[in-house]
Amino acid sequence: MTTTTGTTTTGTTTTRMAAYVGDGVVTVTDGAVRAPARGEVRLEVAYTGICGTDLHIVHGAMDARVQRPLVFGHEASAVVAELGEGVGELVVGQRVVVVPLVWDGTCPACLAGHQHVCQNLTFVGIDSPGALQESWTVPAGTVVPLPDSLSLHDAALTEPVAVAVHDVRRSGLRGGERVVVLGAGPIGVLISTVARTAGAEVVVVELDEQRRARAADLGFRTLDPRDDLERLVEEWTGGAGADVVFEVSGAAAAVAVAPRLARVRGTLVVVAIHPTPREVDLQRVFWRELTLVGARVYERRDVEEAIDLLTRGIVPVDRIVSSVRPLAQTAQAVEELAAGRGLKVLIQVGRSQ
Amino acid sequence: MTTTTGTTTTGTTTTRMAAYVGDGVVTVTDGAVRAPARGEVRLEVAYTGICGTDLHIVHGAMDARVQRPLVFGHEASAVVAELGEGVGELVVGQRVVVVPLVWDGTCPACLAGHQHVCQNLTFVGIDSPGALQESWTVPAGTVVPLPDSLSLHDAALTEPVAVAVHDVRRSGLRGGERVVVLGAGPIGVLISTVARTAGAEVVVVELDEQRRARAADLGFRTLDPRDDLERLVEEWTGGAGADVVFEVSGAAAAVAVAPRLARVRGTLVVVAIHPTPREVDLQRVFWRELTLVGARVYERRDVEEAIDLLTRGIVPVDRIVSSVRPLAQTAQAVEELAAGRGLKVLIQVGRSQ
Repeated sequence: MTTTTGTTTTGTTTTRMAAYVGDGVVTVTDGAVRAPARGEVRLEVAYTGICGTDLHIVHGAMDARVQRPLVFGHEASAVVAELGEGVGELVVGQRVVVVPLVWDGTCPACLAGHQHVCQNLTFVGIDSPGALQESWTVPAGTVVPLPDSLSLHDAALTEPVAVAVHDVRRSGLRGGERVVVLGAGPIGVLISTVARTAGAEVVVVELDEQRRARAADLGFRTLDPRDDLERLVEEWTGGAGADVVFEVSGAAAAVAVAPRLARVRGTLVVVAIHPTPREVDLQRVFWRELTLVGARVYERRDVEEAIDLLTRGIVPVDRIVSSVRPLAQTAQAVEELAAGRGLKVLIQVGRSQ
Repeated sequence: MTTTTGTTTTGTTTTRMAAYVGDGVVTVTDGAVRAPARGEVRLEVAYTGICGTDLHIVHGAMDARVQRPLVFGHEASAVVAELGEGVGELVVGQRVVVVPLVWDGTCPACLAGHQHVCQNLTFVGIDSPGALQESWTVPAGTVVPLPDSLSLHDAALTEPVAVAVHDVRRSGLRGGERVVVLGAGPIGVLISTVARTAGAEVVVVELDEQRRARAADLGFRTLDPRDDLERLVEEWTGGAGADVVFEVSGAAAAVAVAPRLARVRGTLVVVAIHPTPREVDLQRVFWRELTLVGARVYERRDVEEAIDLLTRGIVPVDRIVSSVRPLAQTAQAVEELAAGRGLKVLIQVGRSQ
């Protein structure tokens, strides 16, 4: 039986939770509710999105990092259920999302103001218990209130939308610029959406026919990476090349072509995770004076902008959320995504309103 | 016998010139003086520096690009000898340097204001006759006057100093920051000098013992790349990593280590030419949100700043210029540099004052 790892519990109340127990296995069991310590808040989770990192966890790719059993999940909307001592800025019943980053505040990166990429960052849902549990106790500082008009269902996309907002911010994109997005998974589609909202023209490159069709349905021009991308982008941009290229696919072939798609002084953004070093055309980086930037997670302002975009209805939530499943079907949701069926699956953990 | 490729000549006057004729051979012969056409100016060349690109040319690595015989050389100081029609801003006898870039003014890069990396850039001394000739006719727009107090000898370093100024500008370096320079050839030493002048602390990494000793003589802390660079830079920077890393070596091993030396949100500058794609640790680029920028040639303001640095005596010209040879010894100068003897050889082409 899986239990939470917290030391303070209410003793009598249990909570349903989905956990990765190792060897590709996800179990859904009852665990103890952990009462909030000083500076913490206990949430009742509404929806939790499953993302690529969750698949990595369940497939064992992060076994060296994660303790098992691990209640995973970090894309959550929730309602405040109980406040720990010293938490003054939140009230019980408030609808919220969680920014799952905990920084140490003392490392050189934090001292330089880059807390979101703290050198000792703790990621809630990877390094500590996550959102696939009905009752979830987190540091109060990770909690961001929602406006009344944003549903808990839609708010569950706040975290991936914040990633996209951050990626676009890192690119320095300006209105009217031309953008190529390599990869049309959830983050690729969200980056495309955020870039278009910022006034950019966007072309989406995706190998998978179904994903390509979905991007086309959302109104983006799409290309197959087996096409002559360099020629097509050159034609599109009057011989200049794209202003910004987002590498969201994680594929070596995408890294190889990306510098050839960018204009002189254009920007390439490394969004995807590339676990091994990739061959990069540094000659082209030099020749065209390209800028290549890494973009990881998000800052508070990105989360706030993500909530704003979701509230304004700009994010096509219904096209991105391919299914909603109950907590009991978490393992099936992971399987569904791993098999390439669906784009974003939400787990309805608890209350829906 | 080698001749210039210009169509207008004075007919009666000849000029000594060093040319690459193919198969690694440099000959010094007489060619015809070319009178300046409209918008051109004829110079009497004083000194011409030999650089890495010249070695590439002579070694045949650029045979696909260069016409032979090619009078090469593009790092020159000179005196104005004759003005073509319509050249109003220069006077005969004026001491000058040449910015060897000719852009088309109409490509997307030029229209966006990046003329120095024009998509159809012509590089004088590579794509048209260069500075290893007593009499050299160039577009007037490439000529920059020198202050009286800067010698023609020292001014011959303007072009490589402008490269270094441009590289440092592209890095966004600020005073007080910590810099690692990978490679202590002429450009590496000049980047180190410019960065130090801008208020940075600089560590120079160089494999060659003699070059490492020369950098140490110039007052830089030096490291051997076979040391544990990551640990040493981490210690030096209090666990943060360097603010800026310049890759000036062209070595795959330097590219491999560079991202591990930079702080969160640090900058890597690709200065060296990497003719084949290199493996880059994109995971580190992502994880630390690094920025990698390509830096190529220079803008007019970089040339002006280079002249200013040389005039103020900040560039250690005597340490960088390892020998001065007459035009007749151009082939020997190339050999000397190719063998790793010396840092920068100047060819005294004509007058010295």
